[in-house]
Amino acid sequence: MSTINKTTEKHLMVFSGRAHPQLAQEVAKELGTELVPTSAYDFANGEIYVRYEESVRGCDAFVIQSHTSPINEWIMEQLIMIDALKRASAKRITVVLPFYGYARQDKKHRGREPISARLMADLFKVAGADRLMAVDLHTAQIQGFFDGPVDHLMALPILTRYVKDKYGHLDLAVVSPDAGRIKVAEDWSERLGGCPLAFIHKTRDISRPNEVVANRVVGEIKGRVCVLVDDMIDTAGTITKAADALMEEGATAVIIAATHAILSGPAVDRLKACKVDEVVLTNTLPIPDDRRFDKLTVLSIAPLVSQAIREVFEDGSVTKLFDGKA
Amino acid sequence: MSTINKTTEKHLMVFSGRAHPQLAQEVAKELGTELVPTSAYDFANGEIYVRYEESVRGCDAFVIQSHTSPINEWIMEQLIMIDALKRASAKRITVVLPFYGYARQDKKHRGREPISARLMADLFKVAGADRLMAVDLHTAQIQGFFDGPVDHLMALPILTRYVKDKYGHLDLAVVSPDAGRIKVAEDWSERLGGCPLAFIHKTRDISRPNEVVANRVVGEIKGRVCVLVDDMIDTAGTITKAADALMEEGATAVIIAATHAILSGPAVDRLKACKVDEVVLTNTLPIPDDRRFDKLTVLSIAPLVSQAIREVFEDGSVTKLFDGKA
Amino acid sequence: MSTINKTTEKHLMVFSGRAHPQLAQEVAKELGTELVPTSAYDFANGEIYVRYEESVRGCDAFVIQSHTSPINEWIMEQLIMIDALKRASAKRITVVLPFYGYARQDKKHRGREPISARLMADLFKVAGADRLMAVDLHTAQIQGFFDGPVDHLMALPILTRYVKDKYGHLDLAVVSPDAGRIKVAEDWSERLGGCPLAFIHKTRDISRPNEVVANRVVGEIKGRVCVLVDDMIDTAGTITKAADALMEEGATAVIIAATHAILSGPAVDRLKACKVDEVVLTNTLPIPDDRRFDKLTVLSIAPLVSQAIREVFEDGSVTKLFDGKA
Amino acid sequence: MSTINKTTEKHLMVFSGRAHPQLAQEVAKELGTELVPTSAYDFANGEIYVRYEESVRGCDAFVIQSHTSPINEWIMEQLIMIDALKRASAKRITVVLPFYGYARQDKKHRGREPISARLMADLFKVAGADRLMAVDLHTAQIQGFFDGPVDHLMALPILTRYVKDKYGHLDLAVVSPDAGRIKVAEDWSERLGGCPLAFIHKTRDISRPNEVVANRVVGEIKGRVCVLVDDMIDTAGTITKAADALMEEGATAVIIAATHAILSGPAVDRLKACKVDEVVLTNTLPIPDDRRFDKLTVLSIAPLVSQAIREVFEDGSVTKLFDGKA
Amino acid sequence: MSTINKTTEKHLMVFSGRAHPQLAQEVAKELGTELVPTSAYDFANGEIYVRYEESVRGCDAFVIQSHTSPINEWIMEQLIMIDALKRASAKRITVVLPFYGYARQDKKHRGREPISARLMADLFKVAGADRLMAVDLHTAQIQGFFDGPVDHLMALPILTRYVKDKYGHLDLAVVSPDAGRIKVAEDWSERLGGCPLAFIHKTRDISRPNEVVANRVVGEIKGRVCVLVDDMIDTAGTITKAADALMEEGATAVIIAATHAILSGPAVDRLKACKVDEVVLTNTLPIPDDRRFDKLTVLSIAPLVSQAIREVFEDGSVTKLFDGKA
Amino acid sequence: MSTINKTTEKHLMVFSGRAHPQLAQEVAKELGTELVPTSAYDFANGEIYVRYEESVRGCDAFVIQSHTSPINEWIMEQLIMIDALKRASAKRITVVLPFYGYARQDKKHRGREPISARLMADLFKVAGADRLMAVDLHTAQIQGFFDGPVDHLMALPILTRYVKDKYGHLDLAVVSPDAGRIKVAEDWSERLGGCPLAFIHKTRDISRPNEVVANRVVGEIKGRVCVLVDDMIDTAGTITKAADALMEEGATAVIIAATHAILSGPAVDRLKACKVDEVVLTNTLPIPDDRRFDKLTVLSIAPLVSQAIREVFEDGSVTKLFDGKA
Repeated sequence: MSTINKTTEKHLMVFSGRAHPQLAQEVAKELGTELVPTSAYDFANGEIYVRYEESVRGCDAFVIQSHTSPINEWIMEQLIMIDALKRASAKRITVVLPFYGYARQDKKHRGREPISARLMADLFKVAGADRLMAVDLHTAQIQGFFDGPVDHLMALPILTRYVKDKYGHLDLAVVSPDAGRIKVAEDWSERLGGCPLAFIHKTRDISRPNEVVANRVVGEIKGRVCVLVDDMIDTAGTITKAADALMEEGATAVIIAATHAILSGPAVDRLKACKVDEVVLTNTLPIPDDRRFDKLTVLSIAPLVSQAIREVFEDGSVTKLFDGKA
Repeated sequence: MSTINKTTEKHLMVFSGRAHPQLAQEVAKELGTELVPTSAYDFANGEIYVRYEESVRGCDAFVIQSHTSPINEWIMEQLIMIDALKRASAKRITVVLPFYGYARQDKKHRGREPISARLMADLFKVAGADRLMAVDLHTAQIQGFFDGPVDHLMALPILTRYVKDKYGHLDLAVVSPDAGRIKVAEDWSERLGGCPLAFIHKTRDISRPNEVVANRVVGEIKGRVCVLVDDMIDTAGTITKAADALMEEGATAVIIAATHAILSGPAVDRLKACKVDEVVLTNTLPIPDDRRFDKLTVLSIAPLVSQAIREVFEDGSVTKLFDGKA
Repeated sequence: MSTINKTTEKHLMVFSGRAHPQLAQEVAKELGTELVPTSAYDFANGEIYVRYEESVRGCDAFVIQSHTSPINEWIMEQLIMIDALKRASAKRITVVLPFYGYARQDKKHRGREPISARLMADLFKVAGADRLMAVDLHTAQIQGFFDGPVDHLMALPILTRYVKDKYGHLDLAVVSPDAGRIKVAEDWSERLGGCPLAFIHKTRDISRPNEVVANRVVGEIKGRVCVLVDDMIDTAGTITKAADALMEEGATAVIIAATHAILSGPAVDRLKACKVDEVVLTNTLPIPDDRRFDKLTVLSIAPLVSQAIREVFEDGSVTKLFDGKA
Repeated sequence: MSTINKTTEKHLMVFSGRAHPQLAQEVAKELGTELVPTSAYDFANGEIYVRYEESVRGCDAFVIQSHTSPINEWIMEQLIMIDALKRASAKRITVVLPFYGYARQDKKHRGREPISARLMADLFKVAGADRLMAVDLHTAQIQGFFDGPVDHLMALPILTRYVKDKYGHLDLAVVSPDAGRIKVAEDWSERLGGCPLAFIHKTRDISRPNEVVANRVVGEIKGRVCVLVDDMIDTAGTITKAADALMEEGATAVIIAATHAILSGPAVDRLKACKVDEVVLTNTLPIPDDRRFDKLTVLSIAPLVSQAIREVFEDGSVTKLFDGKA
Repeated sequence: MSTINKTTEKHLMVFSGRAHPQLAQEVAKELGTELVPTSAYDFANGEIYVRYEESVRGCDAFVIQSHTSPINEWIMEQLIMIDALKRASAKRITVVLPFYGYARQDKKHRGREPISARLMADLFKVAGADRLMAVDLHTAQIQGFFDGPVDHLMALPILTRYVKDKYGHLDLAVVSPDAGRIKVAEDWSERLGGCPLAFIHKTRDISRPNEVVANRVVGEIKGRVCVLVDDMIDTAGTITKAADALMEEGATAVIIAATHAILSGPAVDRLKACKVDEVVLTNTLPIPDDRRFDKLTVLSIAPLVSQAIREVFEDGSVTKLFDGKA
Repeated sequence: MSTINKTTEKHLMVFSGRAHPQLAQEVAKELGTELVPTSAYDFANGEIYVRYEESVRGCDAFVIQSHTSPINEWIMEQLIMIDALKRASAKRITVVLPFYGYARQDKKHRGREPISARLMADLFKVAGADRLMAVDLHTAQIQGFFDGPVDHLMALPILTRYVKDKYGHLDLAVVSPDAGRIKVAEDWSERLGGCPLAFIHKTRDISRPNEVVANRVVGEIKGRVCVLVDDMIDTAGTITKAADALMEEGATAVIIAATHAILSGPAVDRLKACKVDEVVLTNTLPIPDDRRFDKLTVLSIAPLVSQAIREVFEDGSVTKLFDGKA
């Protein structure tokens, strides 16, 4: 006989880079396992070293890294982790991106620019990624940048459930801080029972290009509690100006809700200073203690991510987690 | 001596499929050349045959095909043309897509859908395309679907110049028929001197999902001539309902402007019937005589496409045609 | 513990495009299952939409589509189905092609032609196909066009068994309608017990190129029942002229046998009109009721295809279905 | 100024492996140049070493190697030559294959066989080949095995011109030694003015499988000079038996003509012994002096190959060398 | 129900080319199985034919071939075996290379050379290899030439254990025959308990380039038993001269140890003639009886290779076989 | 006429990232041109933005970036620059790497490590690089990691010329600080007229693994000026200990020479403190003023890089710059 037969087993293993280990640990715990012990450190000149302390041969690997600051370091670490897994004979490699870096550079706004979001997809692919899993991509088209399956998870149900439970008895309006992202607001409106929609239109003075002269509210918001929604809050400049404009136009209160808490530079000061009642975010990105503040509420994305990983591992359905929408 | 030296020449050749030869001929004429003589016909079972009547060895090929109906036939013809060029030793193959088919399927709206716009980019690539040139992609992210350079041309300057010349002395408002495409309206507003912006918000009745119960106009349009803008007009259902809603809300007149004249099924009847003063489109897609009507104005895209081809051939700049924006 | 273990299961799922659902249903039934419920329709401008109604994650997918008319539409639909499966995390995708479109364009007959049969293989590959399964490829070399495994099924045993049972007691001769395909006739001859071989030689008049002036029968067929064999019947021009030539040269009767019933344009009328006793075909392509006629016998390919799918799914042997020949 | 401009020159360079340097030298001489000086030798354990003695940067390289015995050594040498050219920055690499090795393994004759002819195409591609040029491929479909342009040259005009000049005044018949290759005979017949066609049908005894019991001539050849044609002569078993069968059936004389002179093992003895008047071959493969014999005529392929290289280098047309057929 | 479910089994199958069947048989036997019956022979012109006599569908294939002389033939045979496995639907293909041919051409020593070791990795990849397994690569960097997992096995523990058992009680020194490979000697030294290190420095006379004028021993070896180590012994020129130099400088005895027994040309005569007590090699390459001699000891690599195959098949750890080093 | 012809021009353009603009400017100046004006900055969250201020269509691009600290940021910037060039239709992209980051991770030292040097090559490739140019790669095998041409420049002639001019009249010895890199020392020795060679052997205490207990000098250096050579100086720990060991063993003086001045962490303090007369480095990496010190001599690599770029652009020879060695 020239064949040796054996029943096939599959092995789920969860790996984390150094960017946001708390989230990865929470995900692993929800799954009932632990993160794979991994050595990772920087050499004196900044080159990253990674090595797994256990055999990963044949495993179904999920490599979690949130693209927080220093963002290029953490992306490179994740690429190196994927390379090491590929060469160590992992069977399948799913790159888990709670926040997908460079997602805003998803097209050429002007000639001779890169499309960095596509580049990231290519880098992950060439390093050895078989699949991606991401939360709330800046534009859904980014799914099409990767040559393979992408599980696109949405924090929307988590955020809207929280807002509905707390504010659903009031007269709400959903507001987009920007003309280009009203679609997100429309999804919110639908989940909040079809409440009115508005957006902020930045008008410009022709004689002074690239300078916004006014934030006009387009839509009816007077006497309403405005839920100002976006996918991410970076420096918080646009959204806090939008909040102030809403209050000036007669809103009774403003709630800010977004998935990704980048909170760069002046973001925290701006959010503290502006006339907003609550800022609701998730932990797709780490929020260090010194960036937390009274009005801030952080919802955990870990149960969603772990549930999605389980479905992927067990050939279940991720789509069903979102009623067929993802 | 073991080397033979020779100055390199490059050869521009323009090819056309059978979908929209008039446009291709116009482009060739603007360039001061003629289309390459090509045999193309269908076998009895519908398989397409293509052969070039002249040597194409070493040429810089531009293959024009507009993805009009029967759309799958014309896409396949273009793929076969590319394959024939590759195997006949064309030096470089630029696929020219005045209208990029399947562009609206640029993401998974729900689980288990294809991303057909990405698939198209991959099909062109594998057939042998080195580059793409397209006019007004449904979303700019589609540029990132192709693994190579994409020259993204915009009909916006042509359309806005026409509208400004004819209606610029009136009080205008730019209106988006859909919350998801206000960005296009914002570009229009900027080119028309910063006029007000509005959009149509389709509200739904929770008890009857997937059914639009009302088209609400969000933004101020009373007493203004509304320019209702989009990238394409397919069945014209949404846009004609939007036009009617605008008139009801107090617009003094409505002008419809869009790049791509798909005009499927009931489109022409709806446009004729609705209260719109003028419909301004381009010839990126063929508009047969029986689909033309009194209120319709068709602007030619050929000068733009031919100018872009010339810049590509001569290592000039396509970006400069759009003031650095493309 | 940083690993979760689980026994691996595999899941066979059969999908069908809209080209020839009867065959796919028959195949599924033979396998003891049902086709995966699938939404597929055309948008107003002809773009195809596809979505699977059940989770396909991790499945071993077999996607059946016969390339019948409108052939480009059905090929594109199959490509889109593959893309949707790939992005929905199917584990392995086998493209089942009862009839492989464009198979006759398997080489450049003249310069500057495409090799469309290779192009098809590349399109399937780039869309996401892991494997192909095809019935009676026009030339066996097409297997080499695909970069991966190809299961090449042969209808020959089915056809020859039928002919042998019915006509085996008579003096037979096997005839090829064309000098280029005598190999097929030789295979038939072997299976029919080594009966004589002949072929039709189309002679041309030098002064009138591309015009056949006579169909000469090369080989001994006088007093014999001639089995005129080919892989496909398209317009039936060549084969019906061959049948008539055989009768003129003294054949006692003529039987036509082929795998693929394209039956384009005048095919049915020609077959009805010519002096042939029986036309034996299979259902690799759909034959609508208005194309069926008295002398026509249709044998089902479904048992063969379903048996092959089972062998592929269960790591059995397809080769053994053909005594080691495939 | 941030650009340095320069007119582009192209540089033709011809390289030869060690398999058949005479042919390569003849080709270079026809082109008016010399072979690029190259070090090539075997290390003690048989590994091949190659190095070019001149800079090849930016050149348009044509790498000639005939796949003669020891065939695997020469194929490997050519692959290594291509690798060295790629890494030394050659601009374009055309692999010139006067005889394409493994061409007969162009399909799976039985299950679990390789398709070695496709494998060869892939090996050349991955080593760095941009294009192939080959003479009389065993089957034309092999062109489709390579992912890129293939210039398929035909020795047919050279061979038929010779036969026509010498034997054209006699009553000729063209005969194929095998049912599977009558197409080649048909092309010959056309070029010789439409003379009759025949083929040899090997009949088998059912009780003794795999054993040919008789070579029956199918077609009229009595009283004619038979031109027995094939693409290659390997061991000459089939073709010499065919020649004898023809003489027995009443042919007045037999001429053998083929492109590729493999002449393995007993080939020369068989050709000398059989009743054939002349054997006409080309020098696509080297024929050492001890394999030459009286009845043998060798026509040079070098003028054809050099003319084709010139057309490729100068962006001319290879197709026109064959009246649009290649 | 539209799904058929089944527990997945995996099937280990071991294949051997014709280069070194004894080793493959030994490996199969250690695994408790037999080699898959395979037809492999050369056609008259040297083309290789391969076919598997059993179904290999879905198997986990290990294809063993040692790159011994005629090396290009055996590499090509292995490539053809891989192609046949890929097309016959093997699930995973691991190429087992007890000796990796062309490993010494791992960089460009001078301009316009190939990097043949990288080329080999690419050839295996394009033929269909998923993974490589190799013993003692000439340089460890070759692992990085393959785009996928490489299991790098080391004979070092086997060799050092033997030497330690037999000579460990004596005063040893480890000597490298070449300045470029002292790292190997350092690994030996560590395993032999930290004994002294030396190397042979070939000094050259400036007036006579490329000519070694003296072999100077750098390091202290007087009064010690020198273990002269390398990865392979090819013509044995360098190593036997080194042995003689060591004896002249006062070594009490010399032992030669290496993994790969190429033993080309004068190697055996040189080894017999030089003042060495024992030559310790492994059977990664076949050593025919007429190349064996009294002082030669051959250790078997089969237990190591079979153990590594088992770990790969069972998702175990290869690294642990070398205490985390491989 | 269906063709427009034009003489081809090529355009050299030099681009620089933000890592080491002084070197790039020096290179551009030597070439007689200027760097292409480029916008490059970090967004608030660290994402890098790049845009070229001039048209780059059709250019022959050389993209210079030295992988200095923060190394991951500068590698990512270079990848993004390449992506932008590819999408802006640069004709050819050569990545210029005065120092190639992650070069020391060129193999798996232990199981489950990455091969980051190969990963870097793949990242550059997928981003769009056609070619690499690098100075003194850590191991020459890295050339084989890139799938395309690599121009490997050597600083050795620059460094040895300086040392020979200044110290050539003294009794020199060349010393390698490590057993693994004696090959570099051998090259130095050859260029310095064949002076003696030595290396430092780090001995370890078996009872305390991973701890070096002594640096033994292997080879004769007493009474000589030792030139201690390496490819790079990172933290300078090994090399300064080596210098001290040499002085203890009787060297009259020590000169340190290396190509790459990483000079991480304690490097400068260690070099200042150790008994070395001069430290000779090049400017492949930037050396800020606060890292410069009295004994330090910095030689410019810019003339070499610019000369190589010129040869590449003009289809000259890079090999000839190194007497056929590169």
